[in-house]
Amino acid sequence: PAKAKSRRQRWDVKPSEMANNTLNPIRAIVDGMKLTPNPEKPMIALSIGDPTVFGNLPTDEAVLQAMKVAIDSQKYNGYAPSVGYLKSRQAVANFYSCPEAPIAAEDVILTSGCSQAIELAISVLCNPGDNILVPCPGFSLYKTLAVSMGIKVKLYNLLPEKLWEIDLQQMESLIDEKTSCVIVTNPSNPCGSVFSKEHIQKILKVASRHCVPILADEIYSDMVFPGCDCPSMASLSSDVPILSCGGLAKRWLVPGWRMGWILIHDRNEIFGSQIRQGLVKLSQRILGACTIVQGALESILNNTPQSFYNNTISFLKSNSEICFNELSIVPGLNPVMPSGAMYLMVGIEMNHFPDFENDVDFTERLVTEQSVFCLPASAFEYPNYFRIVVTVPEEMMVEACGRIGEFCQRHYRPRSSDSNDLDQ
Amino acid sequence: PAKAKSRRQRWDVKPSEMANNTLNPIRAIVDGMKLTPNPEKPMIALSIGDPTVFGNLPTDEAVLQAMKVAIDSQKYNGYAPSVGYLKSRQAVANFYSCPEAPIAAEDVILTSGCSQAIELAISVLCNPGDNILVPCPGFSLYKTLAVSMGIKVKLYNLLPEKLWEIDLQQMESLIDEKTSCVIVTNPSNPCGSVFSKEHIQKILKVASRHCVPILADEIYSDMVFPGCDCPSMASLSSDVPILSCGGLAKRWLVPGWRMGWILIHDRNEIFGSQIRQGLVKLSQRILGACTIVQGALESILNNTPQSFYNNTISFLKSNSEICFNELSIVPGLNPVMPSGAMYLMVGIEMNHFPDFENDVDFTERLVTEQSVFCLPASAFEYPNYFRIVVTVPEEMMVEACGRIGEFCQRHYRPRSSDSNDLDQ
Ligand SMILES: Cc1ncc(COP(=O)(O)O)c(C=O)c1O
Ligand SMILES: Cc1ncc(COP(=O)(O)O)c(C=O)c1O
Repeated sequence: PAKAKSRRQRWDVKPSEMANNTLNPIRAIVDGMKLTPNPEKPMIALSIGDPTVFGNLPTDEAVLQAMKVAIDSQKYNGYAPSVGYLKSRQAVANFYSCPEAPIAAEDVILTSGCSQAIELAISVLCNPGDNILVPCPGFSLYKTLAVSMGIKVKLYNLLPEKLWEIDLQQMESLIDEKTSCVIVTNPSNPCGSVFSKEHIQKILKVASRHCVPILADEIYSDMVFPGCDCPSMASLSSDVPILSCGGLAKRWLVPGWRMGWILIHDRNEIFGSQIRQGLVKLSQRILGACTIVQGALESILNNTPQSFYNNTISFLKSNSEICFNELSIVPGLNPVMPSGAMYLMVGIEMNHFPDFENDVDFTERLVTEQSVFCLPASAFEYPNYFRIVVTVPEEMMVEACGRIGEFCQRHYRPRSSDSNDLDQ
Repeated sequence: PAKAKSRRQRWDVKPSEMANNTLNPIRAIVDGMKLTPNPEKPMIALSIGDPTVFGNLPTDEAVLQAMKVAIDSQKYNGYAPSVGYLKSRQAVANFYSCPEAPIAAEDVILTSGCSQAIELAISVLCNPGDNILVPCPGFSLYKTLAVSMGIKVKLYNLLPEKLWEIDLQQMESLIDEKTSCVIVTNPSNPCGSVFSKEHIQKILKVASRHCVPILADEIYSDMVFPGCDCPSMASLSSDVPILSCGGLAKRWLVPGWRMGWILIHDRNEIFGSQIRQGLVKLSQRILGACTIVQGALESILNNTPQSFYNNTISFLKSNSEICFNELSIVPGLNPVMPSGAMYLMVGIEMNHFPDFENDVDFTERLVTEQSVFCLPASAFEYPNYFRIVVTVPEEMMVEACGRIGEFCQRHYRPRSSDSNDLDQ
């Protein structure tokens, strides 16, 4: 009978398409690597984008104090509004508002880390079947999220020879009617690059010409080396509406706390109330950031001393210089000096390393022989490079660079074409 | 030319379908109500499912202490694994494992509140076009999440006359090949009901017969009045695979902290490694709970004194009895005595209240005249009832019940059919 037909006859529980389509390229690549360090050398991981792992970059005492005050107040145990406490949103607005891009509390949505900020921003702007433009090399989460939601990803190129500026012409050529946003990461993970004011203005012109909003991933904002200027995208936009995603993770060195935010920049009312309401509705699906961190946020933003930020930056710059200088003289490697964030990309002249097939092979063998692990940039869809995280203690950085040098010396071969030339 | 055609000619940024389809019935109903309290009476809100709002139910000192220790340790500032620290997962496993339903650390996934646990569970089990069975009356988030993901919702009935047991026959009739899970909330929001062992066994039989997994929302587990037993669904299941969702929010009185979990019960390997891996992959999309709370979790679970739990329960029971007793003698109202959680449902004999169209109208006027706000159960798809939250201070509960009584006295009319009978 009809009833029996509608009944499942045996257990058959399968994960959803969304679960199956949630792909993490870093995991996929790293899990596929044979990482067996040389037992004679202690392991040095230059791969982990978590500045806290080595203990050399603790957050500021004022940050911890703010948390304890929030706990003791007992005022932050209940539910906050889904977009965050008004007072905390106000604090973020005050911190980031500037004359060129003023924002108020209502332009701020607090989220569970910058990741959720990005997820909400993509969710509100894009439908399945749309496409988004993301940087290559770039942070892998954009694609992971988009693909799991049925949104297509088009990669625009960053140019190492131009300090990772965007290939604007190629980027523009990718835009079509189905392009629902352009993601710009500045400063960049994995490049550590920082765009000039002029370059940002050109990016904005492209977006403006095609009427495409921008998702600015500015989680590394203000993490730029001294002498380098890093205006926010919004501060340079007169018409392009921008969702700027940020958070405490990197600059305040507490990525585990999951405090992020979206800043809604919409001076021309292009997002209007619809996108705002969409974000509010989406924020109600899960509820965002822990209320203790929300309660501490105002104090964290206002009471962290400038010296703390400066010290972090000095350290990152100094370590970047050490790494850049050491690797610049290594045959077959082309490090690109960063201007901010906490990463440095190194090009591998693969034709000089016939022992290795690609960057994954190269970095795998670097572990086997030298116990140094760098993330192959294939994880960022950018083969023949690897990424170094420059937050490790200085001694480690020096030691690691020495080992990388040794490794390359050993495997470097003059180009066969060169030798052919000589032979002839 | 082709290029010009592909270009958007003007700004036209619209929220996504998902944003548009994220509907929050509580907000929709409450925002549509005219809530102007009587200026002569202070407002009493019996509507908010947040036990912390009145300050009469603080969390335990041990819970706060655990947080401060976690902060001071500086060990919990970095990223945790996406499914949570192993030590914290182990602590949850130890806390909930029992001989009938043993679980280990790997069966626990930590999430940003029970809400994210529910979201992950639905996400991993269901595809767009599938349907899920949810209780009516029931917690609105299930439908909000499902609809936003293109999953259909079928409501199964809870029976007030049977202390909100499930109408099993009707529930079973809803199951078809596209049914990817049954959500069971026990103890219940909004009913405060607790299922007997026998009833749970019957629910499991239905699921087993149709090979449908269960999402057990057990966020109110162990919040049952003395003398009442409340076994977990998993402890009574021999074959049905169960994702049990829970968290710190209610029992530990810290809903804002966003600490939840999924317990994977799968003794027959029906979920198998696939569903587990699916959950792990989905957990990587955003990253879950704040690491400070994760770091404190073991200590919170192990060091909160039994007296704290007992005191909360005694208070909830006593307040429920006050409310039930007071409203039982009010003409036209039919309160249903709860056995747990923190809610009590009250039926309105609408035919005795001709002044009001429905429960929304009734509760709106209760605010206007008596400054008492109860959530109309239309928000739970269950008209002609309203829900009372029993976490308010006792004086408030007494005062509120008095005012509700006054309100009903004033508006109660003997049934027209009764009076007709008398007339004849
Ligand atoms: C460019 C970029 N955006 C976003 C994130 C995620 O930040 P959060 O940890 O606050 O979610 C990261 C983390 O590495 C990142 O590098
Ligand atoms: C039945 C039920 N499930 C889940 C939740 C959500 O819990 P959390 O605040 O931990 O996300 C609630 C909150 O009221 C609830 O009543």
